[in-house]
Formats: sequence, C-alpha cells, structure tokens
Amino acid sequence: MTCSHVTTSCQYLLPDQPKKVVGETFLLQQTTISAMSEDTLEQYRQRFRSELDRVVDFWLKYSLDKQHGGYFTCIGKDGKVYDELKYVWLQGRQVWMYCRLYRTMERFRRPEILEAAKAGGAFLQRFARVPSSGNPGKCAFCLTRDGRAVKVQRTIFSECFYIMAMDELARVTGDQDMQSDAEKMMDQLVHWVRVDPSGLGRPQMPGDPPVNSMAVPMMLLCLVNQLSEGRPATAQKYSEVGDWSVQQILQHVQRDGTAILENVSPEGKELPGCQGRLQNPGHALEAGWFLLQYAQERSDNQLQRTAVDKFMEVPFLSGWDKEHGGLFYFLDVDGHCPTQLEWNMKLWWPHCEALIAYLMAYTHSKEPALLGRFSQVYDYTFSHFSDLEHGEWFGYLSQEGSVVLDFKGGPFKGFFHVPRCLYMCERLLDSLLEKRQD
Amino acid sequence: MTCSHVTTSCQYLLPDQPKKVVGETFLLQQTTISAMSEDTLEQYRQRFRSELDRVVDFWLKYSLDKQHGGYFTCIGKDGKVYDELKYVWLQGRQVWMYCRLYRTMERFRRPEILEAAKAGGAFLQRFARVPSSGNPGKCAFCLTRDGRAVKVQRTIFSECFYIMAMDELARVTGDQDMQSDAEKMMDQLVHWVRVDPSGLGRPQMPGDPPVNSMAVPMMLLCLVNQLSEGRPATAQKYSEVGDWSVQQILQHVQRDGTAILENVSPEGKELPGCQGRLQNPGHALEAGWFLLQYAQERSDNQLQRTAVDKFMEVPFLSGWDKEHGGLFYFLDVDGHCPTQLEWNMKLWWPHCEALIAYLMAYTHSKEPALLGRFSQVYDYTFSHFSDLEHGEWFGYLSQEGSVVLDFKGGPFKGFFHVPRCLYMCERLLDSLLEKRQD
Repeated sequence: MTCSHVTTSCQYLLPDQPKKVVGETFLLQQTTISAMSEDTLEQYRQRFRSELDRVVDFWLKYSLDKQHGGYFTCIGKDGKVYDELKYVWLQGRQVWMYCRLYRTMERFRRPEILEAAKAGGAFLQRFARVPSSGNPGKCAFCLTRDGRAVKVQRTIFSECFYIMAMDELARVTGDQDMQSDAEKMMDQLVHWVRVDPSGLGRPQMPGDPPVNSMAVPMMLLCLVNQLSEGRPATAQKYSEVGDWSVQQILQHVQRDGTAILENVSPEGKELPGCQGRLQNPGHALEAGWFLLQYAQERSDNQLQRTAVDKFMEVPFLSGWDKEHGGLFYFLDVDGHCPTQLEWNMKLWWPHCEALIAYLMAYTHSKEPALLGRFSQVYDYTFSHFSDLEHGEWFGYLSQEGSVVLDFKGGPFKGFFHVPRCLYMCERLLDSLLEKRQD
Repeated sequence: MTCSHVTTSCQYLLPDQPKKVVGETFLLQQTTISAMSEDTLEQYRQRFRSELDRVVDFWLKYSLDKQHGGYFTCIGKDGKVYDELKYVWLQGRQVWMYCRLYRTMERFRRPEILEAAKAGGAFLQRFARVPSSGNPGKCAFCLTRDGRAVKVQRTIFSECFYIMAMDELARVTGDQDMQSDAEKMMDQLVHWVRVDPSGLGRPQMPGDPPVNSMAVPMMLLCLVNQLSEGRPATAQKYSEVGDWSVQQILQHVQRDGTAILENVSPEGKELPGCQGRLQNPGHALEAGWFLLQYAQERSDNQLQRTAVDKFMEVPFLSGWDKEHGGLFYFLDVDGHCPTQLEWNMKLWWPHCEALIAYLMAYTHSKEPALLGRFSQVYDYTFSHFSDLEHGEWFGYLSQEGSVVLDFKGGPFKGFFHVPRCLYMCERLLDSLLEKRQD
C-alpha cells in the first residue's frame, strides 16, 4: 500500500522517548519509515518483551485460586480480588495463554506456568459444562468460585474458549483424552453453527430472523487454526469449515467495500436499523489479521490485499478518533450515534488487535505506511493503557483518554488480549530483526 | 430536616438567570431558602409548564406511526426516526403518559392526544403478547414496526407497562374490558413475583440463588397505586401487595442505614460481590418518592422520614458528582469502580426522579434544605439535558457533562420520565403556590 497522504509533521512515540499523547491521524512519508532503524525495532521488541514479562507476572501473582482451582479474573488495580465469580471465557483464554507461552517461548517454560495452566484446565473440565441446561455440551458463561453455574449464555463462546484451552493444554501435556474432548466439543459447535442452532436454546422469534454476526465465523476460524496446527489430518477435516468461515467473514465487507459491518443477513446483505449499521473497529482489525494469517498460509495474495485494505485500513480511518486518539468501541456507519452507551469509549482490546494487525501486515508486505500505523497505535496504547505503577493494563478509558474503570481484570477482561498481543508482536519483531540481520 | 452544613457560598440557578453549571454540593442556609420568593417558585412553574408543552409537542409531532400504529421511540436529535423497532416498555409508558396528561391537565384534553393514546393502546393490545413464548400472558420486550415479536425478556417489566397503559387508557375511555385486561395481567404478575416465577422462564441455576432487586417491588407498588386510584374495592384487594412491596423496598436500606443497595438476598441481607455492592442513585431517589407518596396517603410519619433521609439524602450524598455535578448512573458501595462501563455517565432519568423527589419532599415538610436540593438538581438538569434548539432532552452525558448519545428517544428513552417529572413538578408547584396565596 503506497502512501496517498504525505504530511510534513511526523510524530510517533519511540519506546525510549518520553511519553506523549499523539492526537493526530497521519501517514508517514515512505522514506521516513523505511529509514526507521533497526535500533527502533529493537527498542519496540525490548518494550514488548518486558511488558509481556510484567503482565505474566501480574496474573501469576494474583489470579490463581489456590483453594478452589481456576482463576480469579475480577482483579483490581493493585491486584486485589473484588469479586469471586469465574467467567468461563476468561478461564479458557487464560489456560490457553499460559500454555501457548509455555509451549512456544523458552523463558515461559516454567513449572509455575504449567501448574497454573493445569489447575485452570482441571477447573474447566470439572465445572464448565452445565448438565442442568438439558444440553450435554453446553458450557456456563459464569460460575461461582467453587464451580456452580450462575448463568448460561445461549451463544457459542464459552464452548469456543473451552476448546482453545483444552487443545493447547493437551499439546503441552500430551493428554489424548483432553484432545478428544476438545474435538468433540468442536464438532458439536460446528453442528450448532452450520446445521441446527436449536441446541443453543435461543427461541425463534417471528420478528427476529437469523442474523450473521461476524464474531461467529471469526471464532470458528480461530478454532480451525488452533486444532489444525501441526496435524495434517485434522487440518484436512476442518478445511471446509475454515474456508466457509473465511467466506462468511468476507460477507461483512459492505457498501461497495467502504465499510465493515458487524451484522449482515444470512445472504450477506445489509440489515436495517441500528443492528445493521453497527460497526466495531477493533473486531474488524482482529478479523483482518485472522484473514491475513489464513491468506499467508495459502499464498492467497488477493485475500491478503482484502485483509489489509478492507479489514484494517478502512475501519481504522473511520474508527480512529482524530481529536483524542484511540479507536472508538462502536460506530454507526451512517454517522448516527450508536445506541450502546459505551460507544465512544477507548477499550484495551481493539488496540491490542490493531497492533497485531498492522505489525503482521507490515512484516509481510513491508509497506512503510503500515509500520507508521503500528507506531501510531503503539503511541496511544502504551501511553494510555499500560500501568507502570501496578503493572498490567487498564481496560476502559473515556473518549478523552482518562481511565473510567480502573480494574485490571473484570467480567470481560482477563489474561488474553494483552499477552496475546505482546507475544505475537514480540515474535513478529523477532522475525523482522532476523531478516534485517541478513 | 435541619441544615447540618452551612456554606458561605450559595449558588443555584433560578429559571430566569443565565445558565451556569453548578459543580459543588452544598446545603443552603435555612433562612436563604425560606426567603425564596413566590416569584421564584412561579418562575419554576412557568419553566416546567413550557418545557412540558415542548416535550409533548415533540412526541406528538415525530412519534406516531400512522401506518402501523404504535410509536416510534428511536428518534434522533431533530426528530428523525433512526430505527423502527418498537420497545414495549416505551409503548406502554407513552400510552400511559398521554392518557394521564389528557385526564388530569386541561390543556392536554385534546383529541390529538386521545387519538394518539388509543392508537398506541390498540397496537399494544394487538401485538404485545407473544403466544409463541408458550406463556399466555407474556409480553415481548421488543417488536418490529408491524408488531412481530423480536425479543422476550424473562422479567416482568413489559407486562408492568402494559398494565399501566391499559388501566390509564381504560380510565379515559371507560372501556371495562380493557380495565379487566389490566387487572388480569396484574394478577398474573403478582403470581409470578410472589408465588411462582417459573412462568417467567428463567432457569434456576445452582450458583444463582434468588436475588431481590429493588425494581420489582417498586414496579409492583407503582401498579398498586395505578390500579387503586379512586377504586376502594381494588385498593382493598391490592392493599396487602402494596404493604408487601413497601417492606421489600425497605429491605434495601443496608449497612446500618448508610446505603441503599440495588440487590439484596430474599432474607434482606447484603449479597457478596459486585452485584451485592451495586448502587443506583436514581433508582433510590425514585423509590424515595414512591415511598413518600405511600406514606403521605397513610399519614405514616416514620415512613416519610425514612423515605427522605434514607432514599433521598443518603443516595444523593454519595451519588452527586462533587466535581462535575449530576448524579452518577451506578456506584459501588465500597468505592470500587462498578463493572458497568457506563457507570460514571449522567443520565436524564435519575435527574427527573431527583427533581420529583425533592420537590415532593419539600412540598410536604417545607424543610428549606429540600428546596435547596431541588434547586441544585434543577440547575444541573436544565442546563445539561434540555435541548433548546430542537426540543426534548438529551439522555446520556459523559461524566464531565457533554452529550455522548444525541438521540431524543432510543431503546430505553421514551415519552415517560421527562414528561412525568415535568407534570408532577408543575402540579407540586401549583400546590405550593396555592398554599402561599392563602
């Protein structure tokens, strides 16, 4: 992607510079970015490494429930637990993250991390499923501290993160039963999504025809990747599901390619009303790197282009707050205000996804403007979310960038987006620097 | 209530003064308030009257769906419809409000208002119930423009506002069948709340024991008042339900009377976690005037005192934002940030309830500090929410007081809190000024 904008000012925050807030949108001159030195990239890498270490330490220190197993995720600013409820998405994600780090990064191959992962996995295996739901595979959304079901959501996401956890843990421990458990739940999930959703328990309302929300094929693609890694037979088994998921995600490119919409009809058409006009920039960016990864594995240049142009650049241009910086949580494609009260807030996870997306895109195409975007997002993210005093990141800022919810973990914020982003970016920077040394 | 605080500065906004934002919490000296002239109260009354006229005109102009009946409530800043979904709470409330104004205020005894009320009532009678839910009386939460059910909430609130609407409309039209319809649904509702909630369809989860949320007895009390007005036999029939509701509400006074908590155990004890610590200042104030009204009808001085001290003053002191003014939407009694992303926003309806509460309390006890509170709330409310350009009120402000969602009606904001507040305050000011003229 060549630069279509050239600005005279060029402000971005390098890891070693004093922290400044950058409020403007800009694209850097090609020559400036390609001159970005190896030193700069190395500084980024060191920052991501040390940040990852601090984040892992935070959760290892505060999160494990030594009495009942599983993890506390409602953790305050300074590490104190403020609620004992255990949210299943977050339990699954945390098990997955510990295992992924243990398995792929030498400095995390520590017994403490393996034990924490196994404790979380055991808690999930024991308590996640809710027989009382009348549905053998259904997992709870939320459990009490000691594992009793509090709430069941009639969606697939608890099951998704259960599968992620079990598969990654099985890769680490070699537990074949756990592996089968994960695949069995995957097959049930695919059945719910593609054959018969009635098992989810959502009543069919006459005024509520089926709607395709982007999260579903995104999660399916994520699971296909997870299960297929290093297993040709499994990859073959889920190959069609993966293709289908990609096609479903692509249906969210709307308005002649000028917008990504969260919800479309099953035929891939725009829906009416607020629901049809809803945009989630962070989600689009996340879908963008999912697609990019998929495209790279298959050397699909057209899909790579689409991933970057449609799922990264287009959402970024409307999603980035030109006045205050940062990505809006929700938008309405026609410029109405969304009906979500929190629409204009700046949340941590869209910024995590943007960092991954742009660094991944840059790593593969080397287009300087993409590194410029990465810098722009890095700048805002590290100066706003990272808590140098207590560690980990705040999750929820006002539009103007001040902290609104000061906890480090909550019902939806756990040990996942931040470490995943830091780990992936560290790996991408590793590869960039290796190449540079050639 | 005597003044325990005396401050040297005394800032409040009179209707005829230029609008200023008042950010401080204060209690006015008794002598200053009791010197508040008849002119000042008359200015308030004129402002509330004209504001009510403008609000009624706004909804009459933009809301009625002439093609399908019922009302659009997703109405933008300037009156344009941005979504056609019809939310049943808001349909019921709007019918009730039109009828209440038609029935009790001479200037609203206009055919246009009666026709609009009847059209809304017809839409509700035809479409609100969802036979497909397997539950004969269950009403939808949300309908399509042409009346097909989109969503059913497993709570009682759609039914509550259906009852309000049908009863008030029956009072206006004399339609006995409609009257019976309302009472039949009330009996079902009381059954769900006090005998057997299984008809609501909420599954009983092992980790989710029953919780008493203050909204339920508040709505029951509201309905008892509605149905009992002018009908001694009905008042007798529901007298025990009314008493029970009051006792249930009183259970939300916690921490030795220093806090109102939204959720308590069925035994009236504090619950653990975020749920147990949740506070909603606007809700407490609304409960306060519900209790005050009930207490006045029974000359119950102790309950009057409790209503004012515990449900108005206590929540106000913690709920009022001393820095920016306005009432927080949610709080945590232990000072954690709530997990609701929107906790620090300033919403229109808590301010409506505060205006009613304090003016009602002042009208009956004449304690000057209560009028001081009314002024303080009036000041903030009218300078922040009321839209002098396009009419009606914005609903949702940031903590600092700027408009975040600029629509005039949405999924939860309709023709109810604002007109109810304006109408009740106008009536209270009428009575204050009549008394003064004695």
